[in-house]
Amino acid sequence: MASGNLFILAAPSGAGKSSLIKALLERHQDRSMQVSVSHTTRQPRPGEQDAVHYHFVAKSEFEQLIKQDAFFEWAEVFGNYYGTSKQAIADTLERGIDVFLDIDWQGARQVKALMPQTITVFIAPPSRAELLRRLQSRGQDSEAVIADRMNKARAEISHYNEFDYVVVNDDFDRALGEIEALVISQRLQQPKQAIRHADLFAELLKED
Amino acid sequence: MASGNLFILAAPSGAGKSSLIKALLERHQDRSMQVSVSHTTRQPRPGEQDAVHYHFVAKSEFEQLIKQDAFFEWAEVFGNYYGTSKQAIADTLERGIDVFLDIDWQGARQVKALMPQTITVFIAPPSRAELLRRLQSRGQDSEAVIADRMNKARAEISHYNEFDYVVVNDDFDRALGEIEALVISQRLQQPKQAIRHADLFAELLKED
Repeated sequence: MASGNLFILAAPSGAGKSSLIKALLERHQDRSMQVSVSHTTRQPRPGEQDAVHYHFVAKSEFEQLIKQDAFFEWAEVFGNYYGTSKQAIADTLERGIDVFLDIDWQGARQVKALMPQTITVFIAPPSRAELLRRLQSRGQDSEAVIADRMNKARAEISHYNEFDYVVVNDDFDRALGEIEALVISQRLQQPKQAIRHADLFAELLKED
Repeated sequence: MASGNLFILAAPSGAGKSSLIKALLERHQDRSMQVSVSHTTRQPRPGEQDAVHYHFVAKSEFEQLIKQDAFFEWAEVFGNYYGTSKQAIADTLERGIDVFLDIDWQGARQVKALMPQTITVFIAPPSRAELLRRLQSRGQDSEAVIADRMNKARAEISHYNEFDYVVVNDDFDRALGEIEALVISQRLQQPKQAIRHADLFAELLKED
């Protein structure tokens, strides 16, 4: 079986990344792709389930895993750890399943350095006004928090040129189709197709 | 404007390449893609129009163009010349239009050597039996001609591993979607998107 492809999908908060990934997975329920489930030390938010949204672990356990070099990449954000287990991703790719890593530019840089064949995709909002509107429409944060988010978004966007591909989320369905095109096209690479269709090419090339 | 991408679509006779290209162009009538029109010295077949299907030229004229190094690649097949004008392709790409080159593995190799950024795609038939059926169903050729075509198809297929991507035409709509995915994904490359969306990124990154 041809091995799966590892995709990094990065975006500023407010670019619509989570909705795009959700819609993509709903379209492809053939177990050919999945998101990577990260480890984190932050508290679960309402509705978040352990081992589905994150592996929620204690700080001491996370630090133990760091010592064991168990993470592909890890980062401390707002005092909480986030990390991506090497083993979980390797196992999934080996089963021929594409994996989406939902991480920031720093994580992208670390993973790309370790696995250069990783496909990195940056998802951009359609405009500054729309980005601000999306950051505000969550409706539960103060102006200072929103201004801070806008600054963080800008910092994330400033690294867009380090990615292999850029998708602008100005039209949801089009952006979804573009991410889908990236996933499909990677599967069509000659070495992968040669493995997937080995029997076909053996038959086609057989002498009479 | 971001420049267009050059695609080589190669396939054995009977793989369904022409139908796929036709359907793709019918889906995208926004002048964002077109097939390259080759020069040839062979006689027009019924229905073929000059400058649409081929630039039909005399042998002496073709040989003059060869001397002027006007062709990207050229080949002699069954005593007729076929060639691809460098200037025509360069002009089209510069206008931001993707160009499909409908050539064989020899032409693909020549073009790729000159323009390494060319995306080469091999379209394969779904099985030997189906390939034979398609070669027969034209219904106007003798068994010897069909056997000859089968040998030529096998010779073409034997080079499938020199291509960047492989599409197996077992389901027409799926194969069409796959070629479309290759075209879309090339447009999403970061350097091209940075040019296409230069204003957007300047706005997003502007300091308050």
